[in-house]
Amino acid sequence: MTIHRITGVYSAATTPLNADDSPDLGLFTAHCQRLLDEGCHGVALLGTTGEANSFSSTERRGILEAALKAGIAPDQLMPGTGVAAIPDTVELTRHALSVGVTRVVMLPPFYYKGVSDDGLFSAYARIIETIADDRLRVVLYHIPQVSGIPLTLPLIGRLIAAFPDTVVGIKDSAGDFANMQALLAAFPGFSVLAGADPLLLPLIKAGGAGCITATSNLVADSLRTVYDHASDPTRAAEVDAAQARINAYRSLSNSYVQIPTIKAMVGLKNGNSAWARPRPPLMALSAADQADLAVKFAQLP
Amino acid sequence: MTIHRITGVYSAATTPLNADDSPDLGLFTAHCQRLLDEGCHGVALLGTTGEANSFSSTERRGILEAALKAGIAPDQLMPGTGVAAIPDTVELTRHALSVGVTRVVMLPPFYYKGVSDDGLFSAYARIIETIADDRLRVVLYHIPQVSGIPLTLPLIGRLIAAFPDTVVGIKDSAGDFANMQALLAAFPGFSVLAGADPLLLPLIKAGGAGCITATSNLVADSLRTVYDHASDPTRAAEVDAAQARINAYRSLSNSYVQIPTIKAMVGLKNGNSAWARPRPPLMALSAADQADLAVKFAQLP
Repeated sequence: MTIHRITGVYSAATTPLNADDSPDLGLFTAHCQRLLDEGCHGVALLGTTGEANSFSSTERRGILEAALKAGIAPDQLMPGTGVAAIPDTVELTRHALSVGVTRVVMLPPFYYKGVSDDGLFSAYARIIETIADDRLRVVLYHIPQVSGIPLTLPLIGRLIAAFPDTVVGIKDSAGDFANMQALLAAFPGFSVLAGADPLLLPLIKAGGAGCITATSNLVADSLRTVYDHASDPTRAAEVDAAQARINAYRSLSNSYVQIPTIKAMVGLKNGNSAWARPRPPLMALSAADQADLAVKFAQLP
Repeated sequence: MTIHRITGVYSAATTPLNADDSPDLGLFTAHCQRLLDEGCHGVALLGTTGEANSFSSTERRGILEAALKAGIAPDQLMPGTGVAAIPDTVELTRHALSVGVTRVVMLPPFYYKGVSDDGLFSAYARIIETIADDRLRVVLYHIPQVSGIPLTLPLIGRLIAAFPDTVVGIKDSAGDFANMQALLAAFPGFSVLAGADPLLLPLIKAGGAGCITATSNLVADSLRTVYDHASDPTRAAEVDAAQARINAYRSLSNSYVQIPTIKAMVGLKNGNSAWARPRPPLMALSAADQADLAVKFAQLP
């Protein structure tokens, strides 16, 4: 067994909004507490599901600080800090470190497409060297279907070689299990975290480190069951049922636009329709889709 | 003839960097002055060619203020202000207005892909309604090959209908002349600006309003010749030669990675190799490519 430096079930927590589109910090921190109560090891706030890149740096800092102020421990929080401009990524990451949060999920700069591995290496290196804080632990973020920027194995290998104590893991949200297997084979000890819920069980069985997923907003307990018992043959039925439940939630959320649907489903779970609001350019489900979703949600296992 | 509210040759000005990657404001403002001397009606600073999304909001404000401080008139400046998060776009646009710059080029929020026209309309509407300044003139920015976010004709039509005195033009950088023709046909009086140099002449002949292009950093005089005389049959040979010269520069810049190559070519034109630096994730040309470029640059018309 390899020893990972980042392990467990992390929730790609959604961010509820007030009627004026500002983050509802009270509802958010209550949600984070509930996610931990339900079994998450930590909260990977301010990711794609959390609409991080729709918030200003000021709003992002406020969301992270609200979670800490609500009593969530710094080592239970793993915020996204990667944005398009290097100085902003540096500033967000330094802010996290300044409040004791040492682990971050970091998108590559994502405006320019088709950039070289040299360019991406240079960007990450510039960020890490500018921050120059030995405490920092970076989880790379591979989500090419949204960012437009795939992180290749050669790039990842160069980053691990250059920053072995800093670049310690990756959130792989591309949904391609072969890529995860290649990562595990190439980089022993590097923490591969599933970004796509259906791949949690196969990833854990293959030696992966855990997950950061959207469905955890709804079925954290099932994710925890899979994570804890994936390798125990005596509990295979329980584990398979948990993964099937995860997949059912995932399948329903993906039958509409995913992020607004996750938010609507959190609202259905908690009886608070305020959850359904996303910030533009994402849009809330139509009333018809919301009604349809409610019926199907009630039928989930 | 329709009357456009934004017309002319605008340079998508590149942004030179100091050795520490900070913007070289002195070199930048001298470049802007030269572009105006060479025939540009204005400088569309802080666009894709200007690496705007690689700069922080603070750096962007500093670059715009430096241009004003150098004596460039506010109505000669058209900065890019559209970023991924609505509050940041609002803040950058308000800053421009606060210093007397009323015309901006505005990308849609560009992190999430595959978003709906409703979502993009809502984002632009939220931005314009939050700013709530009658002076504001917005040039939409269609560059799907970089932003990942195409702006469709129905979306543009909705924005013009909702904000007829604000949404007054579009920079179309997709390089598809049929789309420009469709825009001209659908929205009389809406200022269609070519983002791709080779399309300036056909666009002007078809009733377009002008251009915002990268090659203007090198051959602004030729762009101005095309713009001024495109419809004068007695000067067709001169105009065709100017467009051919533009195309030759464009072709050379696009035979390497475009933006670093434009910067390197500005450096060759002005005898200052410091121009060649881009900010990561863009990378300077290799020494071999730079040498190859210098030979070919010297042979350009």
